[in-house]
Amino acid sequence: MVAKIRHEAFGRSQAPALLKELTETIGPRLTNSPGYERSTAWARDKLSGWGLANVHDEVYDPAFGRGWEFRSARVEMVSPRTLPIHALPKAWTPGTDGPVEGEVVRATFKTVEDLEKHKGKLHGKIVLLDEARAYKPAERPDFRRYSEEELGELQTFPVPQDRGEDAQARRLAEYRKREELNRALNAFLVEEGAVATLSISSWDNGILRVAGGGARKAGEPAGVTGLVVSAEHYNQLVRAVERKQDVRLRIDVDGGFTSDADLPASNVFAELPGKGGKASELVVIGAHLDSWHTGTGASDNGAGVVVMMEAMRILKAIGARPDRTIRIALWGGEEQGLNGSAGYVSKHLAAYPEPTDPEQRALPRAFQRGTGPLQRKRGYERFSTYFNFDNGTGRIRGIYAQENHAAVPVFKAWLEPFKDLGADIVTTRNTGSTDHMSFDRVGLPGFQFVQDPADYFSHVHHTHLDTYDHVVPEDLKQAAAIIASFAWHAATRAERMPRKPFTERDVE
Amino acid sequence: MVAKIRHEAFGRSQAPALLKELTETIGPRLTNSPGYERSTAWARDKLSGWGLANVHDEVYDPAFGRGWEFRSARVEMVSPRTLPIHALPKAWTPGTDGPVEGEVVRATFKTVEDLEKHKGKLHGKIVLLDEARAYKPAERPDFRRYSEEELGELQTFPVPQDRGEDAQARRLAEYRKREELNRALNAFLVEEGAVATLSISSWDNGILRVAGGGARKAGEPAGVTGLVVSAEHYNQLVRAVERKQDVRLRIDVDGGFTSDADLPASNVFAELPGKGGKASELVVIGAHLDSWHTGTGASDNGAGVVVMMEAMRILKAIGARPDRTIRIALWGGEEQGLNGSAGYVSKHLAAYPEPTDPEQRALPRAFQRGTGPLQRKRGYERFSTYFNFDNGTGRIRGIYAQENHAAVPVFKAWLEPFKDLGADIVTTRNTGSTDHMSFDRVGLPGFQFVQDPADYFSHVHHTHLDTYDHVVPEDLKQAAAIIASFAWHAATRAERMPRKPFTERDVE
Repeated sequence: MVAKIRHEAFGRSQAPALLKELTETIGPRLTNSPGYERSTAWARDKLSGWGLANVHDEVYDPAFGRGWEFRSARVEMVSPRTLPIHALPKAWTPGTDGPVEGEVVRATFKTVEDLEKHKGKLHGKIVLLDEARAYKPAERPDFRRYSEEELGELQTFPVPQDRGEDAQARRLAEYRKREELNRALNAFLVEEGAVATLSISSWDNGILRVAGGGARKAGEPAGVTGLVVSAEHYNQLVRAVERKQDVRLRIDVDGGFTSDADLPASNVFAELPGKGGKASELVVIGAHLDSWHTGTGASDNGAGVVVMMEAMRILKAIGARPDRTIRIALWGGEEQGLNGSAGYVSKHLAAYPEPTDPEQRALPRAFQRGTGPLQRKRGYERFSTYFNFDNGTGRIRGIYAQENHAAVPVFKAWLEPFKDLGADIVTTRNTGSTDHMSFDRVGLPGFQFVQDPADYFSHVHHTHLDTYDHVVPEDLKQAAAIIASFAWHAATRAERMPRKPFTERDVE
Repeated sequence: MVAKIRHEAFGRSQAPALLKELTETIGPRLTNSPGYERSTAWARDKLSGWGLANVHDEVYDPAFGRGWEFRSARVEMVSPRTLPIHALPKAWTPGTDGPVEGEVVRATFKTVEDLEKHKGKLHGKIVLLDEARAYKPAERPDFRRYSEEELGELQTFPVPQDRGEDAQARRLAEYRKREELNRALNAFLVEEGAVATLSISSWDNGILRVAGGGARKAGEPAGVTGLVVSAEHYNQLVRAVERKQDVRLRIDVDGGFTSDADLPASNVFAELPGKGGKASELVVIGAHLDSWHTGTGASDNGAGVVVMMEAMRILKAIGARPDRTIRIALWGGEEQGLNGSAGYVSKHLAAYPEPTDPEQRALPRAFQRGTGPLQRKRGYERFSTYFNFDNGTGRIRGIYAQENHAAVPVFKAWLEPFKDLGADIVTTRNTGSTDHMSFDRVGLPGFQFVQDPADYFSHVHHTHLDTYDHVVPEDLKQAAAIIASFAWHAATRAERMPRKPFTERDVE
């Protein structure tokens, strides 16, 4: 089977062509944007076209938020001299109604009390929210593969430090403070009649790193037009204001909300059905279909989407008939907190009871407490394992066993035929920040691969450069072969994937 | 004197503040643009303010070309989907008169014959002039200092290969062909009614590397609006056209010519007068004041300008009274072919006779032939040496002796007190591409320093990122100290700087 998979994966790969279509014909895919809707239809078409079963969308949140998209943005300094400014809007902030002009001022908002200081001073103003930041040149090449030494280091397990007893409480307090400040600031800026806010991009070299701002939920204050400006331009604005020059910008953002009400948000699924007695058991492979909006979501996470789709296509093409059902899941809302995968897990596998206290209900799931023990659904026992791909284009060098020690020898055996492709390490370490965590959190096996860093954290992660050209086609083929093989092994081995020791969260 | 120079250079440096003013208050300085005019006035004010003598502009070309500037540019794809495109205009191309829309087509123009193939097909079209180009990740860190090994290698002299006898003739033929094609293409695009042309940036990672297009001379065909597009966006356009999608853009370039007629172009000079019998002998230090237009010309060559100004300020501040006159020259037109320095040398030091043949007159000086022997002006014998700084922010590591072997021990002695600042090599190698060549070409000593590469050729050379933040203030201070010291030594040593063997160009 592995030989067949490799033959199909390297000889007739559709992964690069799929990625080109997804990123360039469909474009970026902010959850609940028109682009996201186009992408779910596109994925269903492809998956159905290959003859996969049970191709469908499933709502994971009936009121995720409003639709939003943008078409273009123009920012130019008009005083004290002309300067074209490279800037793109934060998602879920309102556009401008044609060009607007305003004087530029600096204002710092670290606490709700800071609002009072600026009361009556921001009418008609464009507000610089951040300080200037010194340029920090990169000390490593932009595009990297792991060295043998780094891979060796990755296989060591650092004994976890004790977390302070109040760590979770502190995080919750910080979260509440931040949320309260954002809400108050958005409302304040509208009340005061500010024109727009500008923030500095978190990376240098003209790279625009842009996520969300405003508010995606209907009824919450979305504030004023908010843009991220390249560091090189932003610093110039701050310094001009500090010199007491009369700094004025003209801003024109063509974009904004595409719905007044919160829309339901969906994941996409398809299956290669199992045969025989284990057909109701599940192996899931997945990646998030949503992206941020300034690039085309090629590395984050078009790469993962097409690798997973290609893995399904390969298995179907070579006539694989697994024992367990292999399901592909393309998640929405990952960028806003693993929402699609968390919703799926809650609905089908396991969930803590919904809180009744409205204050608790308003919190993200990770902060909710005291609602009782984990409720395991019927699918919990039938679930074998989940594999995720979401660290950019970088080729697979191995897998994070996520402290599942019983899985280590299993993965080692599965990687054996991929040593010649550079994939051979199994590290007991955990990795986070993507959708396998939704499974891991309820004690189910969920894994993410070790991938070469490539230019994920130098150029493309959440940036306007996250485009097709920064993805390496050979990496996608290698990953699809390995994942098809892992899915096949998981779906045909005698036992479900072993589970690791699991501590339920405190019930209090 | 060296100790005094270092004390002033490191203790009371004005170089960073000067650079901030030059790049941010004045802005970019395309030759003959309003920004360039502001910069010459600014430089004269500063130099006069420090008490330097003979501060003045001098025209080096009475009809260099038309003025040009731009304020902003907006390019957006409107079909088949929306996509904001990062693009900036080439200098000396016309702006648009408000937003214009057009269908995007690919067309290759390699010879004048290619025009015929596209006749009748470009009306209302936006023309992609280049092919798509695969992304090439950088293999080295963006910002580099020379290693000891590289500095060692730089001190070896590779024996020059024989140039083919017809090398110059071939270059001339290529030049004529390129000029003829550009002129014909510009006229053709206007006749056909094309909307605009787009070219791919020569660097990846969203960096816009933009120089000139169109035509700066009055009466020459400036063609249509021409922009450089980031590689990541340009490739998307080419692929969409190749997929036969209906690709349409909206373009709005606010900018264009600021004069109908060719304007005179000037250099700026100031002096620390010599005392006694050698006062009519000259040591010149210089850098080009002009820049390209999409950044603020900080590394290219604001750094050189302020280093040279600061060197003059230091010498004046410490009360230096040199034997020979030390002159600072801030050149215009460097980016268009070392025009300011070449004009100065021709007028004051040495020149080949002007050709009478109109066809020869139309050629750049380097291609003119058969006009007779070099005519040495009175200043030729009184000239000692020229020092130039134009390789970005990188600190001085030594100097290119430009095959002037007699100068090697002189420079070695002068660098001795700067070893602790990392500047100690003297290489016999030549370096080119900047204003010392205008002196070197007539047999006069002209030198450029060995500078750390920094991010000159990874990020800032002729790009929209050539801004203040990419310059390292400490590098400017070091360079100013060394150059002030070199100027002092050259202006006080017993003899003029030794000259190297010189072959006049063939008279034919």
